Amino acid sequence: MTEIDFFFDPKSIAIIGASDKLRFGYTTTKYLLNSKFKSFPVHLYKTEILGHKTYENIKDIPENIELAILLVPNERVLQAVKDCAEKGVKGIIIESAGFSETGEERYINIQNEILEIVKETNIRIIGPNCVGLTNFNNEFTSAEVEFNNTLKGNISVIAQSGVLGNVFIDWASGQNIGFSKTITLGNKIDVDEVDILDYLNNDPDTKVITLYLEGTKRGKEFTQILKQMIKPVIILKNGRSESGSNAVKSHTGSMAGNDKIYEAIIRQNPGIFRVNNFYEMFNIAQVFSTQPLPKGKNVAIITGSGSLGILACDEIEKQGLSLAKLNEETINKIKAAIPNWVSIKGTIDLGPSMATSFIPTLKAVLKDNNVNSLLFIFCIPRGPLQEFKPLSSIIESYFRIMKRLSNKVDKPCICVCFGSRWVFDFVLKNASKFDIPVMNRIKHAIKAFRMMYQYEQYLRNKQN
Amino acid sequence: MTEIDFFFDPKSIAIIGASDKLRFGYTTTKYLLNSKFKSFPVHLYKTEILGHKTYENIKDIPENIELAILLVPNERVLQAVKDCAEKGVKGIIIESAGFSETGEERYINIQNEILEIVKETNIRIIGPNCVGLTNFNNEFTSAEVEFNNTLKGNISVIAQSGVLGNVFIDWASGQNIGFSKTITLGNKIDVDEVDILDYLNNDPDTKVITLYLEGTKRGKEFTQILKQMIKPVIILKNGRSESGSNAVKSHTGSMAGNDKIYEAIIRQNPGIFRVNNFYEMFNIAQVFSTQPLPKGKNVAIITGSGSLGILACDEIEKQGLSLAKLNEETINKIKAAIPNWVSIKGTIDLGPSMATSFIPTLKAVLKDNNVNSLLFIFCIPRGPLQEFKPLSSIIESYFRIMKRLSNKVDKPCICVCFGSRWVFDFVLKNASKFDIPVMNRIKHAIKAFRMMYQYEQYLRNKQN
Repeated sequence: MTEIDFFFDPKSIAIIGASDKLRFGYTTTKYLLNSKFKSFPVHLYKTEILGHKTYENIKDIPENIELAILLVPNERVLQAVKDCAEKGVKGIIIESAGFSETGEERYINIQNEILEIVKETNIRIIGPNCVGLTNFNNEFTSAEVEFNNTLKGNISVIAQSGVLGNVFIDWASGQNIGFSKTITLGNKIDVDEVDILDYLNNDPDTKVITLYLEGTKRGKEFTQILKQMIKPVIILKNGRSESGSNAVKSHTGSMAGNDKIYEAIIRQNPGIFRVNNFYEMFNIAQVFSTQPLPKGKNVAIITGSGSLGILACDEIEKQGLSLAKLNEETINKIKAAIPNWVSIKGTIDLGPSMATSFIPTLKAVLKDNNVNSLLFIFCIPRGPLQEFKPLSSIIESYFRIMKRLSNKVDKPCICVCFGSRWVFDFVLKNASKFDIPVMNRIKHAIKAFRMMYQYEQYLRNKQN
Repeated sequence: MTEIDFFFDPKSIAIIGASDKLRFGYTTTKYLLNSKFKSFPVHLYKTEILGHKTYENIKDIPENIELAILLVPNERVLQAVKDCAEKGVKGIIIESAGFSETGEERYINIQNEILEIVKETNIRIIGPNCVGLTNFNNEFTSAEVEFNNTLKGNISVIAQSGVLGNVFIDWASGQNIGFSKTITLGNKIDVDEVDILDYLNNDPDTKVITLYLEGTKRGKEFTQILKQMIKPVIILKNGRSESGSNAVKSHTGSMAGNDKIYEAIIRQNPGIFRVNNFYEMFNIAQVFSTQPLPKGKNVAIITGSGSLGILACDEIEKQGLSLAKLNEETINKIKAAIPNWVSIKGTIDLGPSMATSFIPTLKAVLKDNNVNSLLFIFCIPRGPLQEFKPLSSIIESYFRIMKRLSNKVDKPCICVCFGSRWVFDFVLKNASKFDIPVMNRIKHAIKAFRMMYQYEQYLRNKQN
C-alpha cells in the first residue's frame, strides 16, 4: 500500500485558507511557506501572504498540486473540495471543523456531499476536523508541530484527535520519546485507522504503533487488519460512559459503540494492547521502541526507597508478573557491596547506600538467571544528590553500565524517577544517552514489562 | 496534645553522628549547623565539624538539649539513646536504619532494648529508619529539605517512608503545592500515626492531612482517632499483594495486615479518603487546600480538546458524578461567543476558538445554577500559544477571572494542563497567582471533586 505515500511526502502543496494572522492554521501556513516543501498559499482576496504570491483559487496555480490542505471555514469547504477535484490533486487534508460532529443537518449534508466526491474520484481525504499529519523523517507537517522541540524515532501515532498530533508529541519529546509519523483522522470521511494501520505495518521507519480511537465504521476490516499486524499496536479507546459516548458523537461524529466488543477484538490479538490514558500509551510505546523483550515474568527491583519498592510489588502482582527471587550467588555479591543496615529481603532497597552499592548490585542482578527484567527506582533527594562528585559522570555511569549489560544479557531495563524537575531532567539526560526509558509512574513500567512479555510469548508461539 | 511540640520547634539540638562528608545525614548536619536553631555536633573523634566545636558525647555539651538527632550506624544507636536519656533530652529522632526491618534477631533485639528505655523514661522517639520531620513554618528540618526549593502551605504529611519527607515534597513544590509539616515515622518504635494525627488535628497551620501507611500496630486507637478528625485525611496504604506485604516487613518492620480491614476503617469515615499513588494524594490534597467544597455532583468541562473532554466524561461517570447539563441561557451566551463550527453538545469543546471564546464561556458556565464545579482542560499547542499577544496577560486573565467568579459563586475550579513543560509551567505560573490548582491528570481532578463533594455532604449531615 504505497498509494497514500503522497500524504507523507507531497511534491507540491496548496494551502487553501492560508493565513497571516493568528487563527487556526496560521502556524501551519507559516511553517510550510518557509519550508523546503513547494507550497502555494490560496486566499479569497489577499494577493500576498508572508511574502508569497497568493492565488484566489487552487485552479489558478500554474503547477501540478499533489496535496491540498484546507483551512477555510466549514461552509466554504465543499466548494474548495470541488476546486481541488478539478485541479486534479491526489489528496486533501481537511482540517476545518463543523460537520457531522455538530449534529446539525446542514453540516451533516455538506459532509455527505464531500463523501460523494470521494466516491466519484480517486481523491483521498484525511479529516475533516483534524490537524492532518506529521512525518518526522522529512519534517513535513500540517499539525503545528515544531521540529526543534520534537524528537525523531520509530513510534507512529494514529489518532482521532488533534492533541495527539501536537500537544502530546510536544510532551513526549520532553521525555525523550521519539516519533516517526503521526496521523490525526478527525471525522474520517475517507482515510481511516484501517488504511493507516496497513500503511504503517509496511513502513520501515515504524516499529511500534499507538492508536487513539473513538469508534470505527469498518468493524470487519478493523478486526482483519489487527490480525495482520506484524508490529505491536497500543490502543486507547474511550467513550465507555454514557456522557463520554455522547461526547464522542459531538467530537468526531463517531459512534463509541459497545466497549465490550472493542475489548474482545483487542483481547483476541496477543500483539495488540489496550491502555487507559495517553501518558501510559507513550511510556509503554517507548519501552517497546527501545528495549529487548523479556524472556520471562520475573522483575527485579533496585530501589532507593522501600515504599516505592512496595508499590512496585503490588503492581507486579496485579499485572500477573513475579518479583524475581535472586539466587544465592547474587545475594552474596550484593551483601558484599552493602552496609549491614541495608535490607534486601523484599525489594533490593539500597536506600542511602545507593552511591556506593548501586553498580555492584546492578551487575549482580542483571546477570542473575532468575531475573528477566529490571526496574530501577531512582529517588535520591536533590540535596544529597548534588553532593555526588563528579555528579554527571557517576549518574552517567549508572546508565552506561546498565545499557552495556542489558545488551549483553538481552534483558529490558526501565528507570522510574521521582523527585523535582531538576532531578528528573538530570536522570533523563543521562539515561537517554543509552536509550534507557525514564518515566515517573511505576504502574506504566510494570505494565510495559507485562505487555512486552506477552508479545515475546506471542512471537515465540508464532515461530513454533 | 502539645506534649510533642518540641519535635517541631526544638530549643536546642544535638546531632549525634554529625558528618562533614557525603553520607546519610550530611545535608542535615550542614543545614542545622548553619541555621538559626541552636545545634551541637556530636562525633566520636572529630573536634570540629563545618567550623563548629564538636563533642565526643551528648553528655559533654554544656547546655540543656531538647532534641537529639541520631545518625550513627545501627550498632551504636542503643548506647547513644542511653546517653540521651542520661542527658535528659525530651525527644530523639533516630534516622539510622538496620533494626527490625532487617528480620535479623540481633537488630530486632537492639530495637527492643531501645523500646524498654522509652517505657522507663518520658523520652519520645521518632523512628528508627526515617528522615524525621520538617516544619515549614519555622524551617526546622531533619529531612534534607531545601527551603529555597519548597513552598509553605497548609497541607501536612505523615508517612512511613523517607521519600515523603523530601523527594515528593520537592516534586510537589514544583507543582505549587505548599506544606505545613511533614513527619516520617519509619519503624515507629514510639511516636506513630495515631500521635501525629491527633497533633495535626489540633495544629492551626494544618488544613488537610495526607497519610502514607504501611501498617498500624494500634488498630483500635487508629480507628478512634480517624473518627475524631475535624480535617480531611487522605490515605495511601499499600502492601496489598503478597510480595508487597513481604516488602513492607523488610522496609519498616510493619505488618501490612489484611487490606479489607483498612478499606473498611476508611469507608466508615466519610471524611477519610483512600488514594492509589503519591501524585494522586498530593494533587487531591491541593484541591482540598485551596478550593471551596462543591455543593453538588455536576461538573462542567471547558476543554480545548474533544478527546480529553471524553476521557473526563468517562471518569465523571466512574466516580459517580454527573456532567453538568447547562441551562438554556448559558447555552445561548456561549453560542453568542463561539463560531458555528464549535460543538458544545458533549463537553464545551472550544478547540481552536479558545483565544476569543474562553472568557465569555467561563463567565456563563460558572454562573449557571446547574454547575457545581469546573474542570478547565488546557491544551493549546505551544506554537499557536506563543502567538497570543500579549501572552502573559491573556493567560493570567483566564485565571484571574476564574478566581474572582469562583469566589463569588463559591464553586471549586481545577485546571488540567497538557503539553510540554514549557506550556505546563507557563499555565502553572499564571494559575498559581490565583490559587487555582494545575495538574496533568484528569483522573485526579475528577476524584478530587468526588471526594470534596463527599466531604461537603458529611459536614452538612454533621450540622443537621
